[in-house]
Formats: sequence, structure tokens, C-alpha cells
Amino acid sequence: MALESVAERRGSTLVFHRPPAVAAFAAVGGKKESEGPLGSGFDLTDPDTTFGEASWEKSEVRMQTLCAERCLKKAALPQDKLDLVFAGDLQAQCTASGYALRTLGAPMAGLYGACSTMAEGLALAGCFCAAGYTRHALAMSSSHFCAAERQFRFPLDYGGKRTPTSQWTATAAGSVLVEPEGTGPFIRAVTFGRVTDFAIKDINNMGAAMAPAAADTLLRFFADTGTGPADYDRIFTGDLGQVGSTLLAALCEKQGLKLPNHSDCGLLLFDQKAQNTGAGGSGAGCSAAVLAAHILPGLRTGAYDKVLFMATGALMSTTTFQQKESIPGIAHLVCLSAREKG
Amino acid sequence: MALESVAERRGSTLVFHRPPAVAAFAAVGGKKESEGPLGSGFDLTDPDTTFGEASWEKSEVRMQTLCAERCLKKAALPQDKLDLVFAGDLQAQCTASGYALRTLGAPMAGLYGACSTMAEGLALAGCFCAAGYTRHALAMSSSHFCAAERQFRFPLDYGGKRTPTSQWTATAAGSVLVEPEGTGPFIRAVTFGRVTDFAIKDINNMGAAMAPAAADTLLRFFADTGTGPADYDRIFTGDLGQVGSTLLAALCEKQGLKLPNHSDCGLLLFDQKAQNTGAGGSGAGCSAAVLAAHILPGLRTGAYDKVLFMATGALMSTTTFQQKESIPGIAHLVCLSAREKG
Repeated sequence: MALESVAERRGSTLVFHRPPAVAAFAAVGGKKESEGPLGSGFDLTDPDTTFGEASWEKSEVRMQTLCAERCLKKAALPQDKLDLVFAGDLQAQCTASGYALRTLGAPMAGLYGACSTMAEGLALAGCFCAAGYTRHALAMSSSHFCAAERQFRFPLDYGGKRTPTSQWTATAAGSVLVEPEGTGPFIRAVTFGRVTDFAIKDINNMGAAMAPAAADTLLRFFADTGTGPADYDRIFTGDLGQVGSTLLAALCEKQGLKLPNHSDCGLLLFDQKAQNTGAGGSGAGCSAAVLAAHILPGLRTGAYDKVLFMATGALMSTTTFQQKESIPGIAHLVCLSAREKG
Repeated sequence: MALESVAERRGSTLVFHRPPAVAAFAAVGGKKESEGPLGSGFDLTDPDTTFGEASWEKSEVRMQTLCAERCLKKAALPQDKLDLVFAGDLQAQCTASGYALRTLGAPMAGLYGACSTMAEGLALAGCFCAAGYTRHALAMSSSHFCAAERQFRFPLDYGGKRTPTSQWTATAAGSVLVEPEGTGPFIRAVTFGRVTDFAIKDINNMGAAMAPAAADTLLRFFADTGTGPADYDRIFTGDLGQVGSTLLAALCEKQGLKLPNHSDCGLLLFDQKAQNTGAGGSGAGCSAAVLAAHILPGLRTGAYDKVLFMATGALMSTTTFQQKESIPGIAHLVCLSAREKG
């Protein structure tokens, strides 16, 4: 029956026999994101970051809706043809996604993976298309700096001082439409992450909290597939930032693995110094937008042939933080390539 | 390739050719749940509802962990054999599940579907097992009255008055282990829900907010499969409560459909009058526990042959409520049967 016809399970990695294809993608961002190094890769940016709405939470809903609409438009796919949307975000009870789907009208499987959501959604959409469950599955995620700041840290008006290890939540959304076949890029393999906790308690140092999860998933993927960093043009994590990236390198080196071709979405989205974004970008929308504004375009243009996209999430809340709990991390991995085979 | 070998897609419903099987299930609850009509169906209940923890949020983590452990024990499956866990809950950023998975150690796909989470997770676990992606997939969800009250409404100490339409969040967790084959019960078909909003703004009347989503999913499922209420021994919703159940009946009757065999998990878990639970039980753990303490046992003993399990969720947060947004609902449906065919 199904197993061998759809995917090969190697350890905890699923390798697709007939890799599902990315049919279209879109990225939408705020003003700061438009001014960053990837600004020109966005399909749409809003000069005042409100997206014409009266609250930051509503702005995020609107941004995510616009992003999905752009993505479908690029694929010339009517909304009512969408079989399933895998979506989630950082707002409590994932309301940015829930309210965006109210407008889109498609069936929805709501996700929570914090900043790992885009990789989780893309992996699930890939699995659903490879099995033929969906002809058109959308993965999407978003975050909004102003909504996240007041939820997780301080309202903007308070003017709280930022620590050097703190990251800057991106105001961004990314959508990727996946189909069972096409011209690519292709989803070649996926590895779902395990919750990992190295007892980091500093809510302003989430890169450190997520790095162990990233190392765990990456090392499992390499062991499962018998591959190494040299088999990929680039290994993208998101969003470890400067601190988490350094820690990931150290954790991998402890296991005898060097990562010379590692880039972090949080370090690609902003110019850290010129844009004053601390240890780098973060937020569920950061890796989602970098995927749609940089990684997938790069696979289309030939800049990359085969890459790993591994989004990382910190699974705490303000309640667990106030209760002095440590911050668990998770990282989901998706192997993407320009070609269907090889 | 895959599509026809794994499932038939009828409209937005997936009907499995070789239905995945429920290998084991477990329900864990609090004191009030142990005193309700389904009390004897629980695998474990805690007499003081703290589960030995110092905060209600930690109690929920412990309850969910215990529930997963019981479920795996009943299947004699070591934790490290779990391929993937689909889990979510009501706490902001789904921390009950994230922290429970920190202990369990298995790969996790985090979900957010509010009180619909158990059906969403069971549907995804079914899809993953039917496609052979996972040999052992766990679906689980939970809620804790005391954690939910202080998050969504008032801290218990405030002693807030409850309205007659308000529901009582269950202190309960349910876990279901799904495998590609077995002796059953079997997951025959799944329908993912659409976000539906009838402009209900009363946070104390979530049954009304969710009823339109339940009607939408149920009517789509019947249309997709060419079946009707008479083809099922019972149609379980969760958790519409008294108000939502009445509305669901009215909405279906408008479409010419009577539901003489409808039961709501929120009305099964508690004795409304004797236990003073308002319009009935609710919470992501309510339908999860009723599934594991009543529905699945009923399919094993022969009390039921074929049923629909349709969990409903209200996708608001305290932020959207304070911003005077209406409450969107969602309902995911899973068709379960004692037999693999027929």
C-alpha cells in the first residue's frame, strides 16, 4: 500500500518518491522590511506598516490575507480551488491566521509552531500533496513587530530598552502554494522537529533557546539521509539571529560537523547595524518571507540548486515566562531543490 | 501515483481506501470530570485537579503528559517509537502541548484549532498513517478549567458571575494513537473545516459562534459522501453545548436536514444541572476526553458501529474580544467505524 509509493521513511525523515512542487509564492512586508537587503524580493510592502487597519493585530490579518491573495494570483488559482491551508502565527490563539482564513474561505488546518510555523506548514503541505490528499495546498505564516512587541514584551509606547541579544520581530508574511507536480522548486524531504530545552530562561535571547533544536533536527536529517552540508548549496535557518547562529555552529562542531554554508533568515532580512535590529530578525513571518522573497526565487533563477530550509521556533508564552519556566525550542526542516531528481 | 492508492477525494472530504486504525486511547481528567456521567470512562482522574503542580498551567502540562503516557502504555509502545505527535491546546502559544512534548521527546507538529484541535489532530494522524508517513502517530489535546478561566475570562479568585449561555471548560486531556492498520476502530474519512463567522461577539456564548461552522462542515461531508444522518449511529459534536446544539439543529433543518441522532460532547461530559456547568462543557480537552472515554470505547464494545466525530473551535482571543471583533468558528470532522469496511 501507500508507504513505499509515496515516500521513503528514513529514521524520522520522509523522502518523497515523486516530490511535490511549489507552484507559486509571495512575500508581503512592512516599511523596515522594504528597506532591508531583501526589500526588492517582496511582492508588496506597506509604507506605514498598518496596511490600512486600525490595530496592529488587524494589520497582521490584512497582511496575511494580501499575501495569500498575491500568491494565488501568481498561480492564477481561484480561492475556491484551494483544498487546504496550513497556517499559523504568533498571536495568542493564532488569530492572525484564523481571521485571514475567514476572508479566504478555504478549509484550514491551524498550526502553532511559533517562528517554525512556515517550515511546519510547508512540510505538511508537501506531505498532503505527495499523498494526493490535496491538489492545491497553501502554507503560510506571518508576524507583526508591533503586535508581537506588545504581546510578548512591552507596548511600543513604553519605549522599552532592548538587550544586545534581543531579536527584531519582522513585520512580514509568506505564502507558498504546493501542488502534487509541476516545474518546481520541489519539496524533496521533510523532518519534523522535537521539542528541545537547554534551560534558557532569557526571553530576550531566543536564538540561544532555539539553537539546540536546530542542531537536533539538522543532525537527525544528515544521519537519516546520509548527507552532509556539502550536499546543499545553502542551509537556511530561521530565526536564530547572530547569537543562535554562533551557538548552532558550536553545537554542530561538537559533533564534528562544520557548517560553512549556513545562513540565517534573521540575518538576511535586515542590515543589523544600519537598521538597528539587535541580534537579527525573528518572528513567524521572518523565515516565511525570506523563503518567498529570497530562497524560492533563488531556486527558480538557478542561484541555488538544493537547499535546506529549517525554521526554528521558541515555544514559550508570556505566562510561562512569568512563571519562570525555561524556553523550549523546535525546528522543522524542509529540503528544497530546483530539480525533481538528483 | 499516490492519490487513488491512498484515499479518494470527494469534494473536500478524504475517504481512505485502507482506513488507518486507532491502536489505543486514553483520557485523563479533573475532579469534576470524574464525578460526571463519563467519570468511569477516564483512565485517570486527579482528586484535587492540580496533578501535583504549583500552577494551573503546569497542571495541564502534567495532565497531557500523563494522558499520552497512559495511551502509549496501553499500546505497549515505547515513547521513542512515536513517529509524530499532533498536539495543541487553548493556552496562548499552545504551551501545554509544547511543554508536554518536552517530556515525551517525540517529533511534534503543533496545532491550533481551539476546541476543534482533537478532530484536527486525529484527521492529520489518520492522513499520515494512511499515506505510510508514520507507523505510530499520536493525536492529543487538553484544556484546564482554571488555566482557561484566568486566560479567557476572570481569575477564579475574582468570583465572576457566569451567564446562562456560558460553557464550562473541561479539565481533561485525550490521546489517541493511530497506526496504518490494526483491529480498529478505524478512521474512514476526514473533512477539514472552514472558518465561518456569523458575527457573534459574546464571549460567553461560544456555542452560537461555533454552530455555523459545525453546520458547514457536516453539510459538506454529507454532500461529499452522499450519506445522511441515518447512515451513522451517532453524530458527536464538541463542544456546542445546549445553545449551540439547538442552533446546529435549526441551521441543518433550514437545509432540510434533521439530526435525530446528534449528541454534543459538552452535554455528555457533565450533568448540567447537578454539576452547574451552564450551557455544557467546552475546552479542547472536552471533546478529546469524550472521544477517548466514551466514543472510542463504544466503538470497541459494539455500542456504536459508525459515528461522526466533529469537534468545533472558536478562534478568538482575549485581544480580538477586547477589540470588539466577532468570533469565527471552525469544525473538523472524522468518520469513525468499528469495521474497516461497510
